[in-house]
Amino acid sequence: MKIGVLGAGQLGRMLALAGYPLANRFTFLDTTGHPSAGIGNVMIDTDQRHLESFLANVDLVTYEFEHLPVPLVQAIEAERPVYPSSEAIRICQNRAEEKALFDRLAIPTPAYRLVDSAEGLEAAARELGTPVVAKSVTEGYDGKGQAVLRDPADAADAWRSINHPRLIVESFVDFVREVSIIAVRGREGDVAFYPMAENIHVDGILRYSLAPMPDLDEAVQQRADGYIRALLDELDYVGVLTLELFQCADGSLLANEMAPRVHNSGHWTMDGAVTSQFENHLRAIQGLPLGETRARAPTCMVNVIGREPDPAAVLAIANAHLHRYDKSERAGRKLAHINLVADSHAELLDKVRACAALVPDAPAPEFSFEGTSGES
Amino acid sequence: MKIGVLGAGQLGRMLALAGYPLANRFTFLDTTGHPSAGIGNVMIDTDQRHLESFLANVDLVTYEFEHLPVPLVQAIEAERPVYPSSEAIRICQNRAEEKALFDRLAIPTPAYRLVDSAEGLEAAARELGTPVVAKSVTEGYDGKGQAVLRDPADAADAWRSINHPRLIVESFVDFVREVSIIAVRGREGDVAFYPMAENIHVDGILRYSLAPMPDLDEAVQQRADGYIRALLDELDYVGVLTLELFQCADGSLLANEMAPRVHNSGHWTMDGAVTSQFENHLRAIQGLPLGETRARAPTCMVNVIGREPDPAAVLAIANAHLHRYDKSERAGRKLAHINLVADSHAELLDKVRACAALVPDAPAPEFSFEGTSGES
Repeated sequence: MKIGVLGAGQLGRMLALAGYPLANRFTFLDTTGHPSAGIGNVMIDTDQRHLESFLANVDLVTYEFEHLPVPLVQAIEAERPVYPSSEAIRICQNRAEEKALFDRLAIPTPAYRLVDSAEGLEAAARELGTPVVAKSVTEGYDGKGQAVLRDPADAADAWRSINHPRLIVESFVDFVREVSIIAVRGREGDVAFYPMAENIHVDGILRYSLAPMPDLDEAVQQRADGYIRALLDELDYVGVLTLELFQCADGSLLANEMAPRVHNSGHWTMDGAVTSQFENHLRAIQGLPLGETRARAPTCMVNVIGREPDPAAVLAIANAHLHRYDKSERAGRKLAHINLVADSHAELLDKVRACAALVPDAPAPEFSFEGTSGES
Repeated sequence: MKIGVLGAGQLGRMLALAGYPLANRFTFLDTTGHPSAGIGNVMIDTDQRHLESFLANVDLVTYEFEHLPVPLVQAIEAERPVYPSSEAIRICQNRAEEKALFDRLAIPTPAYRLVDSAEGLEAAARELGTPVVAKSVTEGYDGKGQAVLRDPADAADAWRSINHPRLIVESFVDFVREVSIIAVRGREGDVAFYPMAENIHVDGILRYSLAPMPDLDEAVQQRADGYIRALLDELDYVGVLTLELFQCADGSLLANEMAPRVHNSGHWTMDGAVTSQFENHLRAIQGLPLGETRARAPTCMVNVIGREPDPAAVLAIANAHLHRYDKSERAGRKLAHINLVADSHAELLDKVRACAALVPDAPAPEFSFEGTSGES
């Protein structure tokens, strides 16, 4: 099976590494001029002149990046199967569409307003009660295109700094932790759910994901499973979908955003789950049976951002798995991740701290369950 | 780190898949004209005219195949570090040298004779007592270049069929099972041992490897560890080394042969051990710390030879991991392997039988411990 991937970054690279053992071959279509996959057949196409040649090389198409022109994906869809569909892209690249879908499916979200002006932003901040977070409805990711308003009077500055014609304004949520649920849906509608992960972000960039959570109530996992299943079925979705949520003290979950693809908060599955998110995405889009999603052991993913640690020091940690993306160092750039696997959560936290000490600029790894988890 | 690999088959392919996450880049030198790696930069060089260009592309060199001209490897060694060394190749490609090394290190082997004629073969068969197996001292692998003599009078026919100027003649061993030990030695002399595997061969071709063995006495593992450590240290070896042995009823071990590389009987480590043999080979040759070699769970590798099973049927088995080499089907050709992982040996055997039913021409998977292992 010849698989075409729109985008050629580290997610595409890891898809290919998971797909070679399935005898898949990969062609990447890069529209940025800066591919980093470093594997497979990479076509650089900044002017849409190589689309025909790309299509001639592939049996089906998927993507590692949802910020793609919808008409381009629709044009591809007319020629080859595209999983997930362009409809998933259309919704996921617009926060207003995404929230409307959450509302329609009765998936709770933080209270929000849509605004088209600095005045509207100020009114929304007043109505929702500050602090609020304002985000551009399109093009934002990894914390870009966002601003926090501590006071309605911050509206004019926030409007200017985001510089986008339409914003979504959201109430701050009093959450216990940020979590995500990743699920995969096959071509026949079969669905498998990974254990939820606790995620630690700094400045909008993911730094740690840990799964399974030692103190997670099974009812909360089932609630998240129900929400993501509703999304998968509504979109007749094929492949891996990620839903980021806030978990509140009472166990309720508020949906933050979704991503129609393999996701950084699922990288722990490469070493911590029976089947990785990458392999399961490829199984799904090819119509193969889904693989088991259960965790093999407590696992934590540590992101490497901007600068790399000494590989020898990282690999000296027992059961540490280094995944480098073979990119050059640059501030804020995702360069690698490290999966740490342990027999218990207590041992895992020790390894995470040891690893964090090696990773340049790694924030303190403080998980919600620390001090309360006991033996596990 | 840019790694050069001599040979471009499935072992090189799997080395590359393990090395991309370490940010390694791969250039393969294929001297056969029929590379199958399907990954990395493959240079076809059937006339040794591209060696300079190969060397210009790599920082260090390893190999996936020991049947290489020793002068070629020595020439490369003068330009770049080669791990394992040409000395390991020189010994491993000659069964007489290999046996002499085993003798020197007091590693027991089946009784043997070296012969240079049909008459010598007949005399050796008479002296050792038939049945005996005769093998060409060089160029034999996967059961090629071998013949079994049931009677000394078979010598003339055997001599003709093998058609080689020098043979080694070995006594048949009354063994309980065929086993292998895989170990890895780092640049500083640090050594790690994998759990031994039970191997089932048919017509000289490996069909199943299972590890860890549920009934293996710890003393037998330690005996094997001692033998392979003696080889590693004697050769000042860097990388993965494989030693195939016969295990006798009294727990003694007789060395059959060794391979200076990652080995088919270690493919189970890709899904069954904390660190795969491929990653550990790459860690060793780059001077990185060795990874943990312990098994995560009972695992069995099922080889796919000649014809492929339906991937969907294989992937429907829980915790089955398919590793295809993306080669065309041909009788006797290694095309893929499947790693089955289970929580117990009883469950594992059920999976192996289910898988064997799907793999074309798979022999019955009958392990030495069946019926005696009980719960594990």
